[in-house]
Amino acid sequence: MDDPRAIVAAKRDGRELSDGELEGFVRDYTRGEISDALAAAFLMACLLRGLDERETLGLTRAMVGSGDTISFSGLGSPTVDKHSTGGVADGVTLLFAPLAAAVGLAVAKLSGRGLGHTGGTLDKLASIPGLRTDLTSEEIRSQVAEVGCAVAAQSPNLVPADGVLYALRDATATVPSIPLIAASVMSKKLAVETDLIVLDVKAGSGAFMKTPDEARELAERCLALAVGWGRNASAAVTDMSQPLGEAVGNALDVAEAVSILRGEQGGRLRELAVLFAAGALERTRGMSGEDALGQAAAAIDDGTALDRFRAMVQAQGGDPRVADDPWSVLPKAPLREPLLAERDGVLAAVRAEEIGLAAVALGAGRVRKGDSVDPAVGIVVRPKIGDRLTSGDPIGEIHARDRDAAAEAGRRVLAAMDVADGPVDPPPLVHVWI
Amino acid sequence: MDDPRAIVAAKRDGRELSDGELEGFVRDYTRGEISDALAAAFLMACLLRGLDERETLGLTRAMVGSGDTISFSGLGSPTVDKHSTGGVADGVTLLFAPLAAAVGLAVAKLSGRGLGHTGGTLDKLASIPGLRTDLTSEEIRSQVAEVGCAVAAQSPNLVPADGVLYALRDATATVPSIPLIAASVMSKKLAVETDLIVLDVKAGSGAFMKTPDEARELAERCLALAVGWGRNASAAVTDMSQPLGEAVGNALDVAEAVSILRGEQGGRLRELAVLFAAGALERTRGMSGEDALGQAAAAIDDGTALDRFRAMVQAQGGDPRVADDPWSVLPKAPLREPLLAERDGVLAAVRAEEIGLAAVALGAGRVRKGDSVDPAVGIVVRPKIGDRLTSGDPIGEIHARDRDAAAEAGRRVLAAMDVADGPVDPPPLVHVWI
Repeated sequence: MDDPRAIVAAKRDGRELSDGELEGFVRDYTRGEISDALAAAFLMACLLRGLDERETLGLTRAMVGSGDTISFSGLGSPTVDKHSTGGVADGVTLLFAPLAAAVGLAVAKLSGRGLGHTGGTLDKLASIPGLRTDLTSEEIRSQVAEVGCAVAAQSPNLVPADGVLYALRDATATVPSIPLIAASVMSKKLAVETDLIVLDVKAGSGAFMKTPDEARELAERCLALAVGWGRNASAAVTDMSQPLGEAVGNALDVAEAVSILRGEQGGRLRELAVLFAAGALERTRGMSGEDALGQAAAAIDDGTALDRFRAMVQAQGGDPRVADDPWSVLPKAPLREPLLAERDGVLAAVRAEEIGLAAVALGAGRVRKGDSVDPAVGIVVRPKIGDRLTSGDPIGEIHARDRDAAAEAGRRVLAAMDVADGPVDPPPLVHVWI
Repeated sequence: MDDPRAIVAAKRDGRELSDGELEGFVRDYTRGEISDALAAAFLMACLLRGLDERETLGLTRAMVGSGDTISFSGLGSPTVDKHSTGGVADGVTLLFAPLAAAVGLAVAKLSGRGLGHTGGTLDKLASIPGLRTDLTSEEIRSQVAEVGCAVAAQSPNLVPADGVLYALRDATATVPSIPLIAASVMSKKLAVETDLIVLDVKAGSGAFMKTPDEARELAERCLALAVGWGRNASAAVTDMSQPLGEAVGNALDVAEAVSILRGEQGGRLRELAVLFAAGALERTRGMSGEDALGQAAAAIDDGTALDRFRAMVQAQGGDPRVADDPWSVLPKAPLREPLLAERDGVLAAVRAEEIGLAAVALGAGRVRKGDSVDPAVGIVVRPKIGDRLTSGDPIGEIHARDRDAAAEAGRRVLAAMDVADGPVDPPPLVHVWI
C-alpha cells in the first residue's frame, strides 16, 4: 500500500474513501504495519467527517475479512442470531435462545464478554457450575441441531480487526460514532452466517445511545449493512431508560431468567424476550404477529422454553438443576442486604448506567478487558418508572462480599433513582421496529 | 490529571478547552504519560474542530512551558528575531542577520534544521568550514553584543513539546491546521525573549500555505499569539510561487548570499532581505519607511553588511575568507551540469516545492529528521516568472555527485516549470504587511 497517511488525509479533508483504501488500512493496521497513532487519527477523522453507507459497508467488509467466517445455516430449522447493543439488567439472550428453540427456530449465538456498565451473556452463563462456553463450531452446530440453541464464546480469530480497533477507540475517545459502532456490531454478525439477525438497539440512560433518535440511526445503519451484505435482519429500538429486568449481576441474572421461564415472574424483561421470539417467527415462518406472539408466550407458559434452557445448560456441561432450583447450584454472595425506599413518591427517572457501574464496583463486571468477574455479587432493584414507592419499603437487595461494599452500592443505587410526587407515565418498552 | 480522554472527547464534541486542560495534556504527553494514539486523536480533533485564539495561546503557553526559556534582550541595541515559515531558495536569514547588525540592530536567531523541501539556515551555515552553530546562550549574548548578530542551533530543551508534537503530526496527517502551525512556530519565538519578532509567512507552490489568504490567516494567528504574550512582532506574507533566490542547496546558498552582500547580485532575495531589515528599523527605531529602506540598502552598497557577515562567521569559528572568495573555502560538488531551457517562451509558473524536492534528492536536504546533508550539491535556477526563455540557453546548473543524479534533477526542474507564449506578470514580492 502507498503511504497510509494519504488515506487519513483524504478522510480528514472530507473525501469519500474507496473500498480498496478501507480494506488496505484495516488489513495493515490489524497486521501491526500501521501505528496506533495513525489509526487513532484515522478514527477521529472518521468520527468527525463521517462515513457514508457505502464506506461503512467497505469498512465492515474489511473488518470481516481480517479473520475467519463461520456458517450456521442449513441446520434444518431457520437459524437466528440475536444481538443487543448492551444495557443494564438486559438478560434477553438467556431467555430468547431457549424460547426461540422452543418455537422451532435454531439459535446459534456467539457472544463477547461484558465490559463497563453492561453485563455479558457469557459471564452470566459461566456462573452455572460446569457450564462451558468455549465450544468449537462443530460442537455448536451439533448442539443447535439437537437442542435448538447454543450460546458460546466467539473465537479470537472472529473479526480480529474489531478487537484491536475497539480497544484503540476506547483508549482514544473515538467510540461514539454511529458508523464505527455499526461496523463493529455488524462485522461480528456478518462473519457468522445465519438465516436471520435480530438486533436489539437500546436507547436511554443505561445504553450507549442516549436517545431513541440516535438509537434509530444506529439501527438503520446496521440494517443497511445487513442489506448490503445480502442478509435477512430486523431491529427494534428498545427502552434502556431504566434496568430492563430486576437483576444486575451474573448468578442473579440466571436466577431471574429461570424465574421467568418457570412462569413465576412477568414484567418488561419477559415481555421483550417474547416480542423478539415472535418477531423472529414472523420473519422466518411468515407467521402473523398475533399468532407468533401467542406461540412464543405459550412456550413459556407450557414449560417448553424452560425445557430447552435445561437442555442447553446440560449440553454445555452445566448443572441442569439450575432450571429447577437455581439457588441450589448457583454461587451465593456472603451478604444480602435489603434495599429500602428512601421516600414516598413515584419513580420518575433512573440513571441506569450508574446502577450498572455500582454492580461493577461490587465485582459483577469488568472495568478493563481481562478483569475477572465475581459470579455471586450484584444488585436486585424492582421498581420501574411510574411505580409508587413508600419510604422504608424493601425495593431490592444488594448481594455483596462485605458490609462496606454493600452500603456503598446501596447508596449509589438510591442516588441513581429520582422520586417525584405526581404520577409518571412508564416509558414504552419498544420505541420502534425497523 | 483526570482521565485525559475527557479532554479529547471535549474537543471532539466541539467544546472550548481551558488553559488548564491544554497545559495538562501537553505536559503529560511530553512526559510520556499520554499515549501517541490518544495525542493523535487529540490533534485530529483540534485540526477538524479548530482552536480559537484563546485556546491557541493556551496551547502555545503549554508548549513553551515544557522547556527552558532564554532572554536576549537588554543587549544595548534592540534585539530582533526573524523567522520564515519555510520556502525554496529562501536564504533571507543569511542576509538579514548581518544587514540588521549593520544598521545597528542586534540579531539573536535560534534555528532548526531543514526538513523536506525547505532548506535550513543551520545547514547552509554549516557548509562554511569550521563554523559552529552549537553556541551556548552566553556565547550568543556576547557574540551579539560584539558583532551584532548570531545564528545558532536551538537546544533540545527549547520547547521540547514542539519536537514531539511535530513528529507526531507528521506521522498522523495532522500537520495542516493553522492554529497548530501557529502554536508550533510561535512557541519557539516566544520561548526566546527579544525586542522584536519579524515573521516571513510564505505563500505559494513552495510553501506550506499554498494561497496568500491561508498565509495571511496564519500570519494573523501568529501575531495574535505575540500580542497575547505581550511581545512586539510584525509579519509579512511573501511570495513563494517560485524559488526566492537562485540557489537551492547549502554551499550554493552561502555563495549566493555573499554575492548579494558584495553587491554583485540583485533580485528578489536581496530585495526581501532589505525590506525586512527596513521593517525592523521602522518598528524599533521609529524611522520612516523611506529612511529605513535607504539605510538598509546603503549597508549592502557600502560593504558594512558584508563586514558583519565576515565577523559573524569568524566569531562562530568559520573561515572568514568565505566573505571574500566563497569558492576558495566552500565544498564543491564533483559535477556541475548546465541546465538549458527546453523551449522559447515566458516562464508562467513554477512548482517550487518540486524544485526543493529535486535538491533533496541530490542530497542537499533531509527526507527524515536526523538524515545527513551534503553541503556541496544543489540546484541553481535563474529565471523568474515573467522572464523570457530561449530554447537551448543556459538557465542554471545542477551541482551533483554523479551524472545520473544530475540528469534526474535536471529533468525534474525543467518539468516543474511551465512556459507559456504570451507575456506573464511577475507575482508581487510581498502580498501584505500585517
